[in-house]
Amino acid sequence: MGGWQFANVKDGTFAEYVHVTDADGNLAHIPGAVSAHEALYTTDMMSTGFAAAENAAIPIGGTVAVFAQGPVGLMATKGASLQGAGTIIAVETVPKRQELAREYGADHVVDFGDTDAVEESMELTDGVGVDAAIEALGSDQTLQDAIKVVKPGGTVSNVGYHGDGEYRHIPREEWGVGMAEIDIVTDLCPGGRLRIKRLLRLLANDRVDPTKMTTHEFEFDEIEEAFQLMDEKRTL
Amino acid sequence: MGGWQFANVKDGTFAEYVHVTDADGNLAHIPGAVSAHEALYTTDMMSTGFAAAENAAIPIGGTVAVFAQGPVGLMATKGASLQGAGTIIAVETVPKRQELAREYGADHVVDFGDTDAVEESMELTDGVGVDAAIEALGSDQTLQDAIKVVKPGGTVSNVGYHGDGEYRHIPREEWGVGMAEIDIVTDLCPGGRLRIKRLLRLLANDRVDPTKMTTHEFEFDEIEEAFQLMDEKRTL
Amino acid sequence: MGGWQFANVKDGTFAEYVHVTDADGNLAHIPGAVSAHEALYTTDMMSTGFAAAENAAIPIGGTVAVFAQGPVGLMATKGASLQGAGTIIAVETVPKRQELAREYGADHVVDFGDTDAVEESMELTDGVGVDAAIEALGSDQTLQDAIKVVKPGGTVSNVGYHGDGEYRHIPREEWGVGMAEIDIVTDLCPGGRLRIKRLLRLLANDRVDPTKMTTHEFEFDEIEEAFQLMDEKRTL
Amino acid sequence: MGGWQFANVKDGTFAEYVHVTDADGNLAHIPGAVSAHEALYTTDMMSTGFAAAENAAIPIGGTVAVFAQGPVGLMATKGASLQGAGTIIAVETVPKRQELAREYGADHVVDFGDTDAVEESMELTDGVGVDAAIEALGSDQTLQDAIKVVKPGGTVSNVGYHGDGEYRHIPREEWGVGMAEIDIVTDLCPGGRLRIKRLLRLLANDRVDPTKMTTHEFEFDEIEEAFQLMDEKRTL
Repeated sequence: MGGWQFANVKDGTFAEYVHVTDADGNLAHIPGAVSAHEALYTTDMMSTGFAAAENAAIPIGGTVAVFAQGPVGLMATKGASLQGAGTIIAVETVPKRQELAREYGADHVVDFGDTDAVEESMELTDGVGVDAAIEALGSDQTLQDAIKVVKPGGTVSNVGYHGDGEYRHIPREEWGVGMAEIDIVTDLCPGGRLRIKRLLRLLANDRVDPTKMTTHEFEFDEIEEAFQLMDEKRTL
Repeated sequence: MGGWQFANVKDGTFAEYVHVTDADGNLAHIPGAVSAHEALYTTDMMSTGFAAAENAAIPIGGTVAVFAQGPVGLMATKGASLQGAGTIIAVETVPKRQELAREYGADHVVDFGDTDAVEESMELTDGVGVDAAIEALGSDQTLQDAIKVVKPGGTVSNVGYHGDGEYRHIPREEWGVGMAEIDIVTDLCPGGRLRIKRLLRLLANDRVDPTKMTTHEFEFDEIEEAFQLMDEKRTL
Repeated sequence: MGGWQFANVKDGTFAEYVHVTDADGNLAHIPGAVSAHEALYTTDMMSTGFAAAENAAIPIGGTVAVFAQGPVGLMATKGASLQGAGTIIAVETVPKRQELAREYGADHVVDFGDTDAVEESMELTDGVGVDAAIEALGSDQTLQDAIKVVKPGGTVSNVGYHGDGEYRHIPREEWGVGMAEIDIVTDLCPGGRLRIKRLLRLLANDRVDPTKMTTHEFEFDEIEEAFQLMDEKRTL
Repeated sequence: MGGWQFANVKDGTFAEYVHVTDADGNLAHIPGAVSAHEALYTTDMMSTGFAAAENAAIPIGGTVAVFAQGPVGLMATKGASLQGAGTIIAVETVPKRQELAREYGADHVVDFGDTDAVEESMELTDGVGVDAAIEALGSDQTLQDAIKVVKPGGTVSNVGYHGDGEYRHIPREEWGVGMAEIDIVTDLCPGGRLRIKRLLRLLANDRVDPTKMTTHEFEFDEIEEAFQLMDEKRTL
């Protein structure tokens, strides 16, 4: 179900106790070595961000550009690292996120406020382009940029939620006029017991520390305030 | 090299004799059971059209829509059949091509002159959409239609050459707002000895008869007339 | 669940009515064009035999050898045909099954009573070996033969149930001393609504007629006699 | 050619200068940041060991057992780490290699001198078995052990060279009687410019330090002594 049911259809998922259908498929024990704080990240940011990297068909030692370093983008950067990328380029303009991107494995950070992200990415790859480009924002511009920087035979992996506009635009020439074996793939947060167990294992064995991304912490009864904060997207 | 070198770079490929680099990788013997007329099709129409179907990740018994039934589209239809498609919908308006589409395995022919190809395809799949949609024309409209008829988790396989315009347009909603696991993949005619040998085998063992698509035949010294005909795209 | 639950754990699957868990995932409507007689084959012989071919990574136009032509082997032969095999070699000694193998797409039938199946298969492929070898019996000998006839880079796809003996034997040299990129893969009958729907579609659109394999028919209340017949494996 | 030609057929590969066929496909520039000492590892140990991990279909966060920690096994351990394994079990009895295994990413080291490697691996995975088992030795025993510890649906990835004996033995029951979707795959050191460039990139960006495995260093004119040492397999 990829979490869809619990996030969008089923009532009560923010209550103290919740009924879970197909519990054997949907519930995972949290190992003792993993805190609730850490575990929380497996259900969305880690699963979604890693999926972006898994779908990107990154060859071991390959080059990857990750557009946008929000929590999903940061986990995509970490995911690219966990998939054996040889060079990771993170595209981001917020300093705190740039810093985290480096901590999660980015070799280069391209600040699209200062420079053209496509030009810079091409230069960093000696004009060749990247093996894989990950779109973690959901805008027409970054999807276009991702297509522009990927080389023939490469993959554009989208996990951004594209919320508005009638179309997304594929730049025809950089797409190789439809003949360059560039794949454009998409995904939604994958879930289920087996996957979440694997993600928990990455936490238990110290492969990743997602808590670096945490900006605020709340107690259970402060949930309304937490939602309000999220709704307003207050900056760091 | 996918034929690129011989088609676009190397001189002399229309002479009586031609120098072939890496002959072991690029030359295939034509079996006795296969005529030169048949064999000719392996080097482009069969290889390109079949590649469209191979890349489309058609599950055995799955549903496929093939947009445009020119020679590549017809071979994509045949390719879908050879990949085990359970239902094949061919979209085409030229009667002769519609007829050939049926011979090559189409279960339904949608005439986009009479009807809306997207609506009709959705109706033929009970509103579900197809597992795979093949674009064999190279226009913005058919690519959009292909994206519109493919269901979540499905594949849009493009082999059309997109020759003009700045952009191709992805219809955002039908694309599942970037989260529906719809892959858009592209390819160019794959070549090489091993592939061409396999395609020749399909001819030798009567799996396909591409000569039904032949509209004109020429002797070697009529080559200029042949090119003129192709250039003018004289209709059937 | 791949049918396992219904075949081995759940009671009542041979009653007039049966309780089905996760009905949305496990029940498929039989289309009007498909008889109950035909539909029956989707749940085992077609699904298992086709899976053998799907797992065999057959390149379009590739060569395939199918060892044993019982109902699963026959459907593997048909599956290889539906996956676009260019040459299919069926290994079988029972005349009725040899005949059916040809009807389901075999180009050559090798009678291992008359000839060495490995030698004959190598000869039929000009000493190269096949792209894919399917084991549909479950014996040590045929698995070894399958490994022997597959070429470097090829796939051995097993669907035979290996019921006895402590070991299966991989012939070391023909296996390429563990370095020839030969994959040995296995599977069990895959099930579920989506798959069965696709298989029913193949029946509805006349891609395959499994009823040619039927040797006996029974009414519902003759079920005990039917089981007795199966148990005794009475020959044709 | 996977290095085969240069290793086994072509003369002069140990001379000061050597003729390289298809130079565009077979030669890679060594970046300034990479020493010759490091680069040497890309052509065999890194490429072979990483291939073992790449072929093992390790899900991100999955469990992996690597049998034998010679240079290929150690790079397989590192490769599993670079592919995002959540738990890595290294099976080895030589203390120096055990230590290196931990440095390259092993979470657990199983000393088969002290304990049963299969039992211990099963225990470390709560009786479930591993997602992937890598055979990096080339013996019948370790291949059997690899099959025994892999769980249904998992992959046994062999890169060991199996140099003697008529057969390798598949333990029938642990193999799931041929129906457990366990794949047994094999490979040889993959080569070529693009791959070697990617491996050099991993060195340039400090993803791995293979020089920890170096036990002896020689000047070019000491090559005979070096070969003698290798031939005698003098221990550490």
